[in-house]
Amino acid sequence: MELKELQELMLNFISTGNVKELKELLEANYAIDIANALTDFEDDSLLLLFELLDANEIALIMEEAEDDFQRRIVEFIDLKKMVQVFTHMSSDDITDILGIIKVNQRKELLKLMKERDSKDIQMLLGFQQDTAGGIMTTQYIALRRNLCIKDALIKIKNIGPKTEVIESIFVIGINNELVGIADLRDVLISSDDCLLQDIMNENILYVYPDTDQEEVSLIVSKYDLKVLPVVNRKHAILGIITVDDVIDVIVEEHTEDLLMLSGVSKDEKIGSKLSVSIQRRLPWLFINLVTAFLASFTVGLFEDVIVQVVALAAAMPIVAGMGGNAGTQTLSIMIRSIALGEVDIKNDWKYIINEIFLGLINGFATGIITGFIIYLKYDNLFLGIIILVAMIGNLVIASFFGFLIPLLLKRFHLDPAVSSSIFLTTATDVGGFFIFLGMAKMFLPYLV
Amino acid sequence: MELKELQELMLNFISTGNVKELKELLEANYAIDIANALTDFEDDSLLLLFELLDANEIALIMEEAEDDFQRRIVEFIDLKKMVQVFTHMSSDDITDILGIIKVNQRKELLKLMKERDSKDIQMLLGFQQDTAGGIMTTQYIALRRNLCIKDALIKIKNIGPKTEVIESIFVIGINNELVGIADLRDVLISSDDCLLQDIMNENILYVYPDTDQEEVSLIVSKYDLKVLPVVNRKHAILGIITVDDVIDVIVEEHTEDLLMLSGVSKDEKIGSKLSVSIQRRLPWLFINLVTAFLASFTVGLFEDVIVQVVALAAAMPIVAGMGGNAGTQTLSIMIRSIALGEVDIKNDWKYIINEIFLGLINGFATGIITGFIIYLKYDNLFLGIIILVAMIGNLVIASFFGFLIPLLLKRFHLDPAVSSSIFLTTATDVGGFFIFLGMAKMFLPYLV
Repeated sequence: MELKELQELMLNFISTGNVKELKELLEANYAIDIANALTDFEDDSLLLLFELLDANEIALIMEEAEDDFQRRIVEFIDLKKMVQVFTHMSSDDITDILGIIKVNQRKELLKLMKERDSKDIQMLLGFQQDTAGGIMTTQYIALRRNLCIKDALIKIKNIGPKTEVIESIFVIGINNELVGIADLRDVLISSDDCLLQDIMNENILYVYPDTDQEEVSLIVSKYDLKVLPVVNRKHAILGIITVDDVIDVIVEEHTEDLLMLSGVSKDEKIGSKLSVSIQRRLPWLFINLVTAFLASFTVGLFEDVIVQVVALAAAMPIVAGMGGNAGTQTLSIMIRSIALGEVDIKNDWKYIINEIFLGLINGFATGIITGFIIYLKYDNLFLGIIILVAMIGNLVIASFFGFLIPLLLKRFHLDPAVSSSIFLTTATDVGGFFIFLGMAKMFLPYLV
Repeated sequence: MELKELQELMLNFISTGNVKELKELLEANYAIDIANALTDFEDDSLLLLFELLDANEIALIMEEAEDDFQRRIVEFIDLKKMVQVFTHMSSDDITDILGIIKVNQRKELLKLMKERDSKDIQMLLGFQQDTAGGIMTTQYIALRRNLCIKDALIKIKNIGPKTEVIESIFVIGINNELVGIADLRDVLISSDDCLLQDIMNENILYVYPDTDQEEVSLIVSKYDLKVLPVVNRKHAILGIITVDDVIDVIVEEHTEDLLMLSGVSKDEKIGSKLSVSIQRRLPWLFINLVTAFLASFTVGLFEDVIVQVVALAAAMPIVAGMGGNAGTQTLSIMIRSIALGEVDIKNDWKYIINEIFLGLINGFATGIITGFIIYLKYDNLFLGIIILVAMIGNLVIASFFGFLIPLLLKRFHLDPAVSSSIFLTTATDVGGFFIFLGMAKMFLPYLV
């Protein structure tokens, strides 16, 4: 169903108070599509709608809604009703909502929530949003190791509907420590008096709550996991991370990497407000302006040379530009390899030799063509040779810094995607102009 | 366990024929780690190892191994044993292996495989690798709609161990058409004589085998699915796509987007062979060289002006560079939005107005500073004004092309990530130099 059609139908049912058709409409559509449709509604329509709906229906919509919309709903909904809604939501989603609303609303909601739930939520709120603790949920099935299959199945049937994952049963020991994972398939086919510990897999992967979410996503994708338990230092299970949350993390991190590389904040989208876009993009442009002036001052140092050989002005953008392009190639591969956890600084620094060779060869290949064309155009062999040498030099600079900058940033726990490119451009612009114009100055008598 | 330690232990157990300890070692480690460890082994060690292992153990390793290693194993393993190994693997993994080995080996293997399995595989082999059909598996549970829960549970226990997903039971009608999905939780808690069609959810998402894998990943991540069925035009279920394969797709597509943007092929890694890296990167550099020459020729048109006002040579990289930076910001957001399916050409082209305004404002903000510094440095007000106007102009050009190029490429079914940046750089370089130097030529009397 088209967005507009959905919106019109809903508004119609809301205004006429047609609860039955409204609920059927919700049933027939996906919660995320409903949530998207509702973002355009006025407050009074939403208020009317939420009075007509049950807590579980609102929960489905809330879970899928964007941050802004969630915040808006909490603003005007009765907080007691919100607590009812929470009973139908998983703890990680509740925590996310509590994390973005006003402090007094959060306190009020926590007070209203049941003691036990609130404790879970309080714990989750204590973790950083971008760690394993921040994305885990507390809805899972954990059973004692000495439970027999018959009793286990009864518990699974009981708890199952409230959990996010049913395929994996987490098996715990006497102190709640995680000792294994039982596959529901094995539970279903085992005999009644068999114990969970007999069928569980003890070879399990887990993370701690402060593990970075990027590392979590690497583990889940490397080992093709459907769920990853989070344990504390005493190995007691605290929560689980489900694969749909991992997908969100992967998409988020990738968006960040791609956009940060060109100095755009990850939450900017097409259609963002003009004022927001300016705030997000202008600072990066100012930083780049400093780089541009560094390059410009470098050229300025050689103005006397350029006046005598004006061809240099036309040829110099080639040297700087090609260095930038070659460096960006190296940089992208490095940033991607770092993000995928494929690069280990200790073992892989030696590949800088490869990159430098690559710079030499690619610099020679592109430089020889450039040199030849420049020679033909200006009928000046020395100018051709100088640009060839400058391009080899600048592509080596590009390889060197394209390789090293992200590794160094990573080493100092900075995000390589954020600021690598600005350092690289500075190196290839300043380096390119300096080598090219510097050589021209040295060999000026041969050029004039 | 460290890679080296694992390798040493394995080699030791293989050479001494210590099957028991070897199997325990495999048990205690993850298949992917074992597979990674084995890639360094000599052929004869591998041959010995595979004689010691059972088909199901080899299957686990094969599933996780990289393409090159899979191809190597098929080269020397007895094909009859390989067919046994296949019986422990899921159909999508088998298809992937068959897709990368030699044609005669593939034919031989298909002949050796059982009639039914081979048909599934033949079907899967018929789909493009980057479509829903190419990534789906045929191991799923599909039961008739009029089956009662008691019988359904018996079938689930039977088929379950051979399937990739047990949480979702696909419910089919008389002609194998997919009519709903039943949640295993509901199956477990329903009464014995209840029918599957009474508890199934009819509101299901599905794709066709020729749906692009990128679209599949968007659907799975948008709707937080754990599994997505693939049906033919008559709605009969052909296979399912599991979330771990979707994660692989997402990671692959993101790598492609990030690397393609800077002209690197997605399969290049740190540590790739030098000859491979050159082949992958040099063509892009040559294409960029053409752009660089276009920019250079533009500058060359104004050599007479530069000779008279050499400050232009120092200032012009600022105009071109800032245009490139601003344009890349717009470009990255567009490419990301297109990849996430957030941009719809029909509805969203109007945001080009926003982007142009953004170019005006950011151009003015950076241009006024640049103009002021240039004015101070060269004590020439007109030069300052000209660079201000040129920067506004070039940042508008950057916004315009940064927005339009990826949309147009997408419109003509080309990958926006691949070639957008080269067109953009051409526009901002040539445009920037032309506006700046062109204005300088027009107002030359005021500059000298």
